[in-house]
Amino acid sequence: MARVVRGTPRTPLEIVDGLAKLGVATVHEAQGRIGLLDVRLRPIFPAMIAGNALTCEVAPGDNWMIHVAVEQAQPGDILVVTPTSPCDDGYLGDLLAESLMAHGVRGLVIDAGVRDVATLTEMGFPVWAKTIGAQGTVKETVANVQTPIVIANQAVRPGDVIVADIDGVVVVRREDAAEVLKKAQEREANEAGKRQRLATKELGLDIYNMREKLAAKGLVYEDYQGE
Amino acid sequence: MARVVRGTPRTPLEIVDGLAKLGVATVHEAQGRIGLLDVRLRPIFPAMIAGNALTCEVAPGDNWMIHVAVEQAQPGDILVVTPTSPCDDGYLGDLLAESLMAHGVRGLVIDAGVRDVATLTEMGFPVWAKTIGAQGTVKETVANVQTPIVIANQAVRPGDVIVADIDGVVVVRREDAAEVLKKAQEREANEAGKRQRLATKELGLDIYNMREKLAAKGLVYEDYQGE
Amino acid sequence: MARVVRGTPRTPLEIVDGLAKLGVATVHEAQGRIGLLDVRLRPIFPAMIAGNALTCEVAPGDNWMIHVAVEQAQPGDILVVTPTSPCDDGYLGDLLAESLMAHGVRGLVIDAGVRDVATLTEMGFPVWAKTIGAQGTVKETVANVQTPIVIANQAVRPGDVIVADIDGVVVVRREDAAEVLKKAQEREANEAGKRQRLATKELGLDIYNMREKLAAKGLVYEDYQGE
Amino acid sequence: MARVVRGTPRTPLEIVDGLAKLGVATVHEAQGRIGLLDVRLRPIFPAMIAGNALTCEVAPGDNWMIHVAVEQAQPGDILVVTPTSPCDDGYLGDLLAESLMAHGVRGLVIDAGVRDVATLTEMGFPVWAKTIGAQGTVKETVANVQTPIVIANQAVRPGDVIVADIDGVVVVRREDAAEVLKKAQEREANEAGKRQRLATKELGLDIYNMREKLAAKGLVYEDYQGE
Amino acid sequence: MARVVRGTPRTPLEIVDGLAKLGVATVHEAQGRIGLLDVRLRPIFPAMIAGNALTCEVAPGDNWMIHVAVEQAQPGDILVVTPTSPCDDGYLGDLLAESLMAHGVRGLVIDAGVRDVATLTEMGFPVWAKTIGAQGTVKETVANVQTPIVIANQAVRPGDVIVADIDGVVVVRREDAAEVLKKAQEREANEAGKRQRLATKELGLDIYNMREKLAAKGLVYEDYQGE
Amino acid sequence: MARVVRGTPRTPLEIVDGLAKLGVATVHEAQGRIGLLDVRLRPIFPAMIAGNALTCEVAPGDNWMIHVAVEQAQPGDILVVTPTSPCDDGYLGDLLAESLMAHGVRGLVIDAGVRDVATLTEMGFPVWAKTIGAQGTVKETVANVQTPIVIANQAVRPGDVIVADIDGVVVVRREDAAEVLKKAQEREANEAGKRQRLATKELGLDIYNMREKLAAKGLVYEDYQGE
Repeated sequence: MARVVRGTPRTPLEIVDGLAKLGVATVHEAQGRIGLLDVRLRPIFPAMIAGNALTCEVAPGDNWMIHVAVEQAQPGDILVVTPTSPCDDGYLGDLLAESLMAHGVRGLVIDAGVRDVATLTEMGFPVWAKTIGAQGTVKETVANVQTPIVIANQAVRPGDVIVADIDGVVVVRREDAAEVLKKAQEREANEAGKRQRLATKELGLDIYNMREKLAAKGLVYEDYQGE
Repeated sequence: MARVVRGTPRTPLEIVDGLAKLGVATVHEAQGRIGLLDVRLRPIFPAMIAGNALTCEVAPGDNWMIHVAVEQAQPGDILVVTPTSPCDDGYLGDLLAESLMAHGVRGLVIDAGVRDVATLTEMGFPVWAKTIGAQGTVKETVANVQTPIVIANQAVRPGDVIVADIDGVVVVRREDAAEVLKKAQEREANEAGKRQRLATKELGLDIYNMREKLAAKGLVYEDYQGE
Repeated sequence: MARVVRGTPRTPLEIVDGLAKLGVATVHEAQGRIGLLDVRLRPIFPAMIAGNALTCEVAPGDNWMIHVAVEQAQPGDILVVTPTSPCDDGYLGDLLAESLMAHGVRGLVIDAGVRDVATLTEMGFPVWAKTIGAQGTVKETVANVQTPIVIANQAVRPGDVIVADIDGVVVVRREDAAEVLKKAQEREANEAGKRQRLATKELGLDIYNMREKLAAKGLVYEDYQGE
Repeated sequence: MARVVRGTPRTPLEIVDGLAKLGVATVHEAQGRIGLLDVRLRPIFPAMIAGNALTCEVAPGDNWMIHVAVEQAQPGDILVVTPTSPCDDGYLGDLLAESLMAHGVRGLVIDAGVRDVATLTEMGFPVWAKTIGAQGTVKETVANVQTPIVIANQAVRPGDVIVADIDGVVVVRREDAAEVLKKAQEREANEAGKRQRLATKELGLDIYNMREKLAAKGLVYEDYQGE
Repeated sequence: MARVVRGTPRTPLEIVDGLAKLGVATVHEAQGRIGLLDVRLRPIFPAMIAGNALTCEVAPGDNWMIHVAVEQAQPGDILVVTPTSPCDDGYLGDLLAESLMAHGVRGLVIDAGVRDVATLTEMGFPVWAKTIGAQGTVKETVANVQTPIVIANQAVRPGDVIVADIDGVVVVRREDAAEVLKKAQEREANEAGKRQRLATKELGLDIYNMREKLAAKGLVYEDYQGE
Repeated sequence: MARVVRGTPRTPLEIVDGLAKLGVATVHEAQGRIGLLDVRLRPIFPAMIAGNALTCEVAPGDNWMIHVAVEQAQPGDILVVTPTSPCDDGYLGDLLAESLMAHGVRGLVIDAGVRDVATLTEMGFPVWAKTIGAQGTVKETVANVQTPIVIANQAVRPGDVIVADIDGVVVVRREDAAEVLKKAQEREANEAGKRQRLATKELGLDIYNMREKLAAKGLVYEDYQGE
């Protein structure tokens, strides 16, 4: 009953690459604060990438479907792996990373473990994972590749854009990607100006006109009486 | 009902700066092994600082009061933020860090999340946080600034000294700070001598005269019989 | 009732040093995917070592027995410390590390906390620990040294080989060490060839002849229909 | 940008009620072991229900949208609440439960906290929650009601069937519900026969013809030699 | 340096007993949503009590000071125990419970473990604990009794009122107790009326006049278009 | 390479049954506070049993070996199951429980999940587990049965005695069982007398002569000065 879906849509790489430059926090804000994967996914070394989601389900303790997924990879993809129930095993090491890099895959997002982390770091293959662990896996159970999945509490479809950096991982729906890129670029431009004003000791309280609203909500100022 | 308290006491910076040089483990020992914040607070990059606590409560998912706190900052402060219930959201990013640095704040201790970690690292703004996460926050709910708080299972008052390094975060009560500094300096001097003796293979068992007490507690030495 | 066992066996250092070069993931695979300590044990800085287990039990919040263990150390040992109930305290700092290094101990594996991490890093004393924390410990309760223990869900006996790197920590039984070394070296040689083939875009599906077995388990390929 | 969607489809109650009788484990198996919500969701008292998902997003520490959701409720619904970032606050107590029961809602599934648990138990209002906690919430931030959501790592749409009992919570897609009901009923009939055979000491090894396959995978039987 | 403070103030029992009847959620709301202990503290059986805090610090794995605390107990107290660093050991069993009950202590709140839970339940001695665990403790290290402490992220002083039920544990400062009792009673009376209206299917949206504010925040209603 | 060991030793049932009556806390104390399994293992309903360990390893997400273990069961056994890497899946439901009961197995201790908990409770089949969860498992990977294992951080061999009640699970080595039973019975007799004295308000401080030792360790008594 498991299936591999071929010919799934992808987001154009010029959009993907634009999102990569803006980073997770800006993209997440620009699309209305949605799509952030659970914070348990952390990078094994600092990196900032974006790519088309190549989705892959795996059974607990079983990395067979990652081999299947490699064949579906296209340059610019990020492999996105979710176990069908929680698992900390090391699903991928240097061999599979080599294979993925050979096919143009930009990195891995996995809600489970990875191993050979020293070698992956030397190779420059970026990974966001739940754990680092050397426990090996078997190849016995089939599961879906390139179907819609849920990973780390977010829905991801093939060809949705994955943006990942040291702040975490965010997914942008492929139909929203162009619009989100535009909004994120605007947001970044706007923030640069704000940051300059703040650097001169101007207060957010004044820049954003917060004082009246704070008072209305009941905030009061007192002098210290000892405590 | 929320309030901002102005004119709270601070510990003199010459004491604060003395404590910064000694580090968390030594200060913690010197004051009788109290005041250590929960180990879930970790630095986003290695740093070693001390400062006057500028305390700030925030609602879950709401960073409004950090803007209010900035106005109360003085050079040498460390912003200490505790959510009123547990939250992993990214309460602070590069804009607020810029603003805090402009006002002389030395760093942030927060029992919640931060984001823009790559930029914070470039800026050299040290943060001890529970999580790294890009999830944005709203500005709807008021809470207290510069009042006594509990953070990561320790009580902290405005102007208590916060010492933070790669080992974690410790709080020193402002009335104890001068005394703790003195004891910590003595402790450090004493430890240097000990370390030299240990480096020459002298045993702690002998330096601290432990053998008799160990025997009295029932420790016995046996030869290996196979097992 | 606590005891220190003297004269326990050790694995010859030429075997130990051979295992150190191969790393945790390869050794773990070579011995049939057994012996991996729980992934909660993480290095305080990247390192890759192997050594003879010098085992030590400690009471929660009590590091007395580490002082006792130092006297039993021999060059090439790794100190392996397990608390008798879970604890996050900082059991070891720079003084004990100095003492252990003076006796030729190569590193520490502890299912609890350590402190003085900045200094330990400068000293180059590698540690795998559950937590980093400055909380000090007392010296009141005796426990066993150089007896069989369980740490992080694995059984370890004195003189078993501990291999530790950024992927985690694995234990090899002393009677299996020579054989495991041989198998691990063979495995590594074999993997180098595989990696080269994968680098040229050859697929694991073909190298390992997986296609037929996948089909037999019910994996089907479909074309995208929209979803 | 938040929206409430009216007129969403629902699964017929005769199907829903059929699923309720079969329970989570059987339904989960019958649909191919998919759809199980994370095991962190636990019942506040033993109960076994099914209903149409009435989906509701909430901000952390903010239960406003539950009030909005009540108006969309129909008899036979189960309210399914997911916070936009993790939160342990008590989002619902006896008042909202009274309101939901008045509108025919059969229970609550929430990836956050509830309170007034003693009263909810007296009222017989079943809840599956991540935590029990009295922390109150505010009413400041809008979010979506009756849109597709992800909760506890599963995708749920309005009108999908939620089945919940002491084993946890499973979601059945509305288009699959009739088929899953049929398969689950067949499975249950089949299991009754199996259980009878097992009760007479017949072995699963024989009933399922496992011996040959076990041997082929390398399982060997040995006599005890001491260990 | 550890001390036992005698003659600490207590809150009059008529106030304490009034608070016991109202329960945690109501008291917590009445005092402005402060004082709730971390949700990790759970009852070993359903109970609803209030009492004067009898505070006690303990070292990890060491229950000595509970014996010291018993002597300070007065009828109407609740023993409140916090470890100086996190610990899951079973600090108290049936003997200490017997002793506490003999001195009129109403229950135990402990941010650690308890054991003999079956017997404690038979005895009717209510406990809120972090864990249930049989691990025994030693009697080697002194700590403070009847001093201000922090437990489960809240500050508690001797004679503050502890209210505990199935929803958790809340602390009321002794100087606020009378006022909080009054507000909590008013709140309860008010809630009874609300609950009656909700039971007749009246909506919270209307009772609390939420519709306009929701629209102002941007909530829109749509008809289902398929999704 | 997986094996099933036949003819492993068992502890005589009169010893096992004696230990069952004394419970986990008493047995744990009587054998010197060793052998307690991690507190994450909790009963699905209150029960108090003891039995001979029938050990079983399982792969993550794979319950095949439980079927193999059933055949090795003898009346008075407790099945003890440890996954080779952490897993929360529901390894056992009503069918396997029926089969185990038919072979005289008294209960299950598993460092993973179980399902069909409502039925298991009706059947009166006691289980201590890490999680409750309905996620099904496959039958693909072989592992060891009746070999020494580590479970929940304790070493257990076939025929060691498992004692389990609401306080948790403890293992007694088969060669120690008779002696531990004797000591535990003595301990219980001794405790009954202590409990009677405590019930009459006699203090532990006096019964155990603690006052002098407390003073020697630096405990002081003070009168309250306000704080």
